[in-house]
Amino acid sequence: MGQWVYRFGDGSAEGRADMKELLGGKGANLAEMAALGLPVPPGFTITTEVCTYYYDHDRQYPGSLRADVDGTLKAVETSVGAAFGDTDNPLLVSVRSGARVSMPGMMDTVLNLGLNDETVQGLARQSGDDRFAWDSYRRFIQMYGDVVLGVDHHHFEELIEIHKEERGQDLDTELQAEDWKILAGRFKDKVAEVLGHPFPQDVGEQLWGAIGAVFGSWRIDRAKTYRRLHAIPEDWGTAVNVQAMVFGNMGDTSATGVAFTRNPATGEHAIYGEYLINAQGEDVVAGIRTPQHLTKAARENANHAGGNAGPSMEESMPDVFSQLSDVFVRLETHYRDMQDIEFTVQRGKLWMLQTRSGKRTAKAALKIAVDLASEGLIDEKTAVTRVEPAALDQLLHPTLDPDAPRDLLTRGLPASPGAASGSVVFDADEAERRAKAGDRVILCRVETSPEDIHGMHAAEGVLTARGGMTSHAAVVARGMGRPCVSGAGQIRIDAKAGVMTCGGRQIAEGDVITLDGSSGEVFVGEVKTLQPELAGDFATLMRWADTYRRLRVRTNADTPPDSKTAREFGAEGIGLCRTEHMFFDDNRIVAVRQMILADDRAGREEALAKLLPMQRDDFEGIFREMSGLPVTIRLLDPPLHEFLPREDSEFAEVAAAMGVDAKALKDRAEDLSEFNPMLGHRGCRLGITYPEIYEMQARAIFEAAIAVTTGDGDPVEPEIMIPLVATEKELSILRGHVEAVAEAVFREKGTSVPYKVGTMIELPRAAICADRIAGAADFFSFGTNDLTQTTIGISRDDASRFLDPYVKMDIFPQDPFVSLDVDGVGTLVSMGADKGRAVKPDLKIGICGEHGGDPASITFCEGLGLDYVSCSPFRVPIARLAAAQAAIAAEKQG
Amino acid sequence: MGQWVYRFGDGSAEGRADMKELLGGKGANLAEMAALGLPVPPGFTITTEVCTYYYDHDRQYPGSLRADVDGTLKAVETSVGAAFGDTDNPLLVSVRSGARVSMPGMMDTVLNLGLNDETVQGLARQSGDDRFAWDSYRRFIQMYGDVVLGVDHHHFEELIEIHKEERGQDLDTELQAEDWKILAGRFKDKVAEVLGHPFPQDVGEQLWGAIGAVFGSWRIDRAKTYRRLHAIPEDWGTAVNVQAMVFGNMGDTSATGVAFTRNPATGEHAIYGEYLINAQGEDVVAGIRTPQHLTKAARENANHAGGNAGPSMEESMPDVFSQLSDVFVRLETHYRDMQDIEFTVQRGKLWMLQTRSGKRTAKAALKIAVDLASEGLIDEKTAVTRVEPAALDQLLHPTLDPDAPRDLLTRGLPASPGAASGSVVFDADEAERRAKAGDRVILCRVETSPEDIHGMHAAEGVLTARGGMTSHAAVVARGMGRPCVSGAGQIRIDAKAGVMTCGGRQIAEGDVITLDGSSGEVFVGEVKTLQPELAGDFATLMRWADTYRRLRVRTNADTPPDSKTAREFGAEGIGLCRTEHMFFDDNRIVAVRQMILADDRAGREEALAKLLPMQRDDFEGIFREMSGLPVTIRLLDPPLHEFLPREDSEFAEVAAAMGVDAKALKDRAEDLSEFNPMLGHRGCRLGITYPEIYEMQARAIFEAAIAVTTGDGDPVEPEIMIPLVATEKELSILRGHVEAVAEAVFREKGTSVPYKVGTMIELPRAAICADRIAGAADFFSFGTNDLTQTTIGISRDDASRFLDPYVKMDIFPQDPFVSLDVDGVGTLVSMGADKGRAVKPDLKIGICGEHGGDPASITFCEGLGLDYVSCSPFRVPIARLAAAQAAIAAEKQG
Repeated sequence: MGQWVYRFGDGSAEGRADMKELLGGKGANLAEMAALGLPVPPGFTITTEVCTYYYDHDRQYPGSLRADVDGTLKAVETSVGAAFGDTDNPLLVSVRSGARVSMPGMMDTVLNLGLNDETVQGLARQSGDDRFAWDSYRRFIQMYGDVVLGVDHHHFEELIEIHKEERGQDLDTELQAEDWKILAGRFKDKVAEVLGHPFPQDVGEQLWGAIGAVFGSWRIDRAKTYRRLHAIPEDWGTAVNVQAMVFGNMGDTSATGVAFTRNPATGEHAIYGEYLINAQGEDVVAGIRTPQHLTKAARENANHAGGNAGPSMEESMPDVFSQLSDVFVRLETHYRDMQDIEFTVQRGKLWMLQTRSGKRTAKAALKIAVDLASEGLIDEKTAVTRVEPAALDQLLHPTLDPDAPRDLLTRGLPASPGAASGSVVFDADEAERRAKAGDRVILCRVETSPEDIHGMHAAEGVLTARGGMTSHAAVVARGMGRPCVSGAGQIRIDAKAGVMTCGGRQIAEGDVITLDGSSGEVFVGEVKTLQPELAGDFATLMRWADTYRRLRVRTNADTPPDSKTAREFGAEGIGLCRTEHMFFDDNRIVAVRQMILADDRAGREEALAKLLPMQRDDFEGIFREMSGLPVTIRLLDPPLHEFLPREDSEFAEVAAAMGVDAKALKDRAEDLSEFNPMLGHRGCRLGITYPEIYEMQARAIFEAAIAVTTGDGDPVEPEIMIPLVATEKELSILRGHVEAVAEAVFREKGTSVPYKVGTMIELPRAAICADRIAGAADFFSFGTNDLTQTTIGISRDDASRFLDPYVKMDIFPQDPFVSLDVDGVGTLVSMGADKGRAVKPDLKIGICGEHGGDPASITFCEGLGLDYVSCSPFRVPIARLAAAQAAIAAEKQG
Repeated sequence: MGQWVYRFGDGSAEGRADMKELLGGKGANLAEMAALGLPVPPGFTITTEVCTYYYDHDRQYPGSLRADVDGTLKAVETSVGAAFGDTDNPLLVSVRSGARVSMPGMMDTVLNLGLNDETVQGLARQSGDDRFAWDSYRRFIQMYGDVVLGVDHHHFEELIEIHKEERGQDLDTELQAEDWKILAGRFKDKVAEVLGHPFPQDVGEQLWGAIGAVFGSWRIDRAKTYRRLHAIPEDWGTAVNVQAMVFGNMGDTSATGVAFTRNPATGEHAIYGEYLINAQGEDVVAGIRTPQHLTKAARENANHAGGNAGPSMEESMPDVFSQLSDVFVRLETHYRDMQDIEFTVQRGKLWMLQTRSGKRTAKAALKIAVDLASEGLIDEKTAVTRVEPAALDQLLHPTLDPDAPRDLLTRGLPASPGAASGSVVFDADEAERRAKAGDRVILCRVETSPEDIHGMHAAEGVLTARGGMTSHAAVVARGMGRPCVSGAGQIRIDAKAGVMTCGGRQIAEGDVITLDGSSGEVFVGEVKTLQPELAGDFATLMRWADTYRRLRVRTNADTPPDSKTAREFGAEGIGLCRTEHMFFDDNRIVAVRQMILADDRAGREEALAKLLPMQRDDFEGIFREMSGLPVTIRLLDPPLHEFLPREDSEFAEVAAAMGVDAKALKDRAEDLSEFNPMLGHRGCRLGITYPEIYEMQARAIFEAAIAVTTGDGDPVEPEIMIPLVATEKELSILRGHVEAVAEAVFREKGTSVPYKVGTMIELPRAAICADRIAGAADFFSFGTNDLTQTTIGISRDDASRFLDPYVKMDIFPQDPFVSLDVDGVGTLVSMGADKGRAVKPDLKIGICGEHGGDPASITFCEGLGLDYVSCSPFRVPIARLAAAQAAIAAEKQG
């Protein structure tokens, strides 16, 4: 261990901004500002290593620490021209915690430390302001008593209230020096009463008490919980910053304020902030007085908007404001990012108390990144790293107008982002009917099933009472870009009665509600929404991202409209076109059911012959939208019973179409039911046992590809994907079938198209045996949804009862269906990719689960060197940006 | 490539018995017998490498083959003193295929080759027997025409029938030389008519035709299918044996016969076989004449039994029989195993045509192995390898008396071995009621569920209409040692009407049926059964096996009676004691349901308090049976809804017990239902979300262990097993709970017992992350049932619709629930064991799925160096023997 204490101030510092690990964020930035020559009150940082030492040594400090602190404090005294504990000219200090990342629950700040019954009089004399001195003293006792000594703040507040009542005063500002003096006395008495010993008068004892409190707060429960949830290691520790006090409350030439160098909500390049004259920092936050704008322009805007703001700092303190503006430019230029700043003006002199990168909305992040690059402060590559990919979601969908009034009904899970209003309907058919009639509707269901797809398409948004973030409703809605609130458990839907109830309120069919799929909120009535802007900065940043991206980004799309949307969002092909949704269409489902319930191959082929032209049309539409790009089509995957009738009337309809008895059909349907459909007769197992189904699909694909290619379209390269393969033999048998169909179609049509045959790797066995399977595959697509289900043994549809506690207990750091379980599932993905490429180095490998749109999972895929990710259309931009950031990060590390 | 042709005969041979790969089984044994000096007709073997060459070179023979064959044939001519194709003294040969293992569909034999219109006259002169010569010629034309030229044998049979009708003769034996001569002519005409060219008169053409037919038959479909099913590589090829003919049909001093050196049904050490005077080998098989016994004793036995057998060979040909007996002793001593032998006597001279290890029943295998060891022919270790472990199953259960009459009703899957008769019942409660009243019953269900367990226990056997070899019924029945026929799909059960129908027959409740769980057959009425003998040879062989075994063998047992059975079968502890079956007991299920349906922890704890003493009793009983041995107890595993009521009356009962509304209970039960229960809220997920359940179980275990240990029992070491662990954190949390309970119980009781806490490795993620999980585990037990389900993505309950075609199409070489999928699941087992031991070298590792009783899987476990396997009680002896064989094989390889 080296140096325990780092000094800063007077235009120099021992630390730097890049020493955050040692000095914490705050300390590192104070040092940096001091070194830049900015006016920073002098002080020092006790390093995070002291914290680690403290916990490693049974809460003892390193032997030399006291001497180091004393020595450095002396230097501060010299710099300030005051002495700690001096009764004539006392040095006061602030003590603040400063971890690498800020953390709720940690002890934050003690101000005015160094005051006692004697130094307070020195301060009064030095400042020539009794009220200021006694106010500062009582504030110190109050703050130190609360956060260091553990005397609850309500004790102090109560004493102030009693005093004001006694004196008939309403506001703190009406209290005079004498009042604060009396209160300081009562505060000390209260501390002594609660603790059984007096408030410390020794300033050294005060200082070490505060330092100990900061280190002690590192291990309080709230901080530990936060660290656990945010994966912050226990051994990082916190630093402690001790700094000479400056005062914004020394009269009307003093002030305190906070500022962003750009607007954190919009990204606009204009100073944005507030200040208060004659106040300490805490007063700005406390909201007792209304802070004023920093700039004249902001003040005028506010006045135009009907407010009546007081004079701006630009107007009331033009010199200091001008200095401050210069500092802002200096800091932005130095840090090359928008800064969040705290400052104080003490009797006309500006002091900088903090700077850090400012938090911002997605919209602001985008604009600031693009602007900084345009201004030459950062390069385009850096700009690409400045926007959180997940935040883009907010920009791609309509959002609620933040100023619009609203009437909250309930809250569910934010299952698919965006906002939408419409009339409530409880049935998919009804949704479709009303939508065709021009209504905007919200489909409300207990939960959705594949039979509701057409209704979800017709609706503006989807609300379910049951189901998690990865329920059917959530997954399909995200794919379609429809807002969805799922699992709104307070809602009781009575579809027959045409009404839903929630917390005592009734919503009837036809009533208007509004969903915010980004927050999970449901409102009664219509709430105004704002439309997304996809041109401008968004387009610019995405263009830059694409230049640094290595991973291709495809989309999961099953229909021509979804394909179109995805292509507009930049999709470079389709990575997963599911064919089962096509089977649910009203004018097909009877033929599908006839096929499933047929007794023999001849019966199935008769029904499949009816489906062939419809499937061909589906693929033609998709190929046209994706012309020139690859389209991966997954052959039929779900267990057949998913398509079966449930109602007697439906059985009768199918029976009539087949000319058989409805009872026999019901028996056959019963035979098809499964205990665990996820692990049942589905995927390629259907292709093996009923080859005619896949043969029909392959024929539809080849006929469509030829039709599009020989028409005016760009050439199409269909990639036929066999699902749920567990053994090389399944794939080689089915590949043989597909090739035979291709040969037949090509012979009939007298022409051919290039095509690939590959497989989903979505079972652990497939990943383990990927070397053998690769022999029969032109490509692999990791189906990480099913691979997660099988590897961890969790059914996505059933996990809600324990997944939530599991995440809360940190058994899973995140929902493994949202972000790839790198240790478990990721090991299989890595094994599968390695084994596949060992046999076939040019094997094309992608991922097409929900994880294809998750930034952390995309980073993992970049690390494995996969060729592409595929995600739902509305996540394509997120994936493009995440892929670019992953590539840039990889380049840095490489 | 070296030598293509290997000569044998005249007391010497170029080949040996251990050259089966090159010479095939038959050729190698002919060479061996010749080299031993036994009387073998001279001949030669064309090697399997010629077959491989033939297929590698577009059906061309190696260039030197013809010269080699010609040369070796010359040597045979010299030895026999006759010449191939010689019109005066023709050499006749047989041509036979001979692969490494015998294979149906392959061309088998052509006899008498070398006869034509001229040599037949030479043969007549040489033998002095016109009828013999012309009979031989027509046989040759018939056989060669059929198997080499492809002229169907019915053509020839028809011509014989016509001729006999014309002559008014009934039997072939009535036909004279002239008849056979006429028929030989007609046969040749028919061949010419069918083929369009005459029957070959050139003996060289005949020979090469036959050789070509043998090689050609290697690739016919039936042989290919057989090889696929038995994993015989295509490139093994077949050999061809060409051998001088000897004739058992040269009058009354000639004969032909087959023999086993010991009784293949019982193992008795006595010559067992048949012979026919004046006949060729095919006549013994054809069954036209009744063969006679070889030994006097056998003939006398037959006569005593009411038969009227002709003189035995021992009586009719005492000299030759004495020679033959000497040969038998010689061969057994040489091969050190019971032999299956073919021989021919030509005019008083004995010729040996074949010897090989004889097939035998399990009972015979056991006796022969033990006898051979007692006789000093083999050592004990070799004896252990001589019995197929799976065959022991036949010996451990009652079997149908092979002589008892029977009336077959239908056939299902042989789901659990053994035979049993009883009255049909359709309901578990009824089964129990009747059994208590002293009836023997067979429980017949569409399929069984955990609620039927008590009925299965009460029944003599179980019959189900649905479900595979690994259905609930099959697994539980095997565990209990009850015979079970599952998936008898022809049966329709109408439990309400109290009747089942099958193929037009009706079986009412109370009617007696008999099950053969080893064959899958179901009989109407009672069929006599034979009881197993577990002492004597069985006990001896098991004792020998135990001395060579390294793997420990434990049992999967949930009750004291099962534990007792398993211990009698040699189990060395319990590897899997499931606790859920205990929950279904009549006087517990209400409390269990109350626990599940409770709204909160307090409600659950109230119900669990009722269960605690009962669980403690369960464990006490099991600990007593297993005293001194380790007992691994798996905490509650299945999803809770498995325990829920299905009938309204049951809901009412639970509601009354809880004092709540039945409707509310039904809603809660509905909430608990899952789409994929296998991947749902079960296993340790229950322990995490409802810690009180596992805490109750842990308490019951510790209290029981202390009660047994402090009583008169041997010390017990409970091993508490946490199921379905996917992450290290789950295990460490639950281990913490168990340890806390242990501490509390030990403190209360003032004493402690040693215990272990470990986990099932039954999810792919657990195997992948086994290194981390090992940190919190004292032992691993691979739950290969669930691991197979998740790794391959197959639900055991649903797989029947495709698993059968999958095995038939060789996608899976075997049902992966029966024999471990070594490539997929096995890789995870291996990875899990390696990673676990890397972190904790003394980690105890076992396997407790159904595979624990499968010999191939046990061999795999031996290869990984696992510590133990655990299997159902009745498979314990199989596992002991398989483990011994695996250890012996490993020692040989090592």
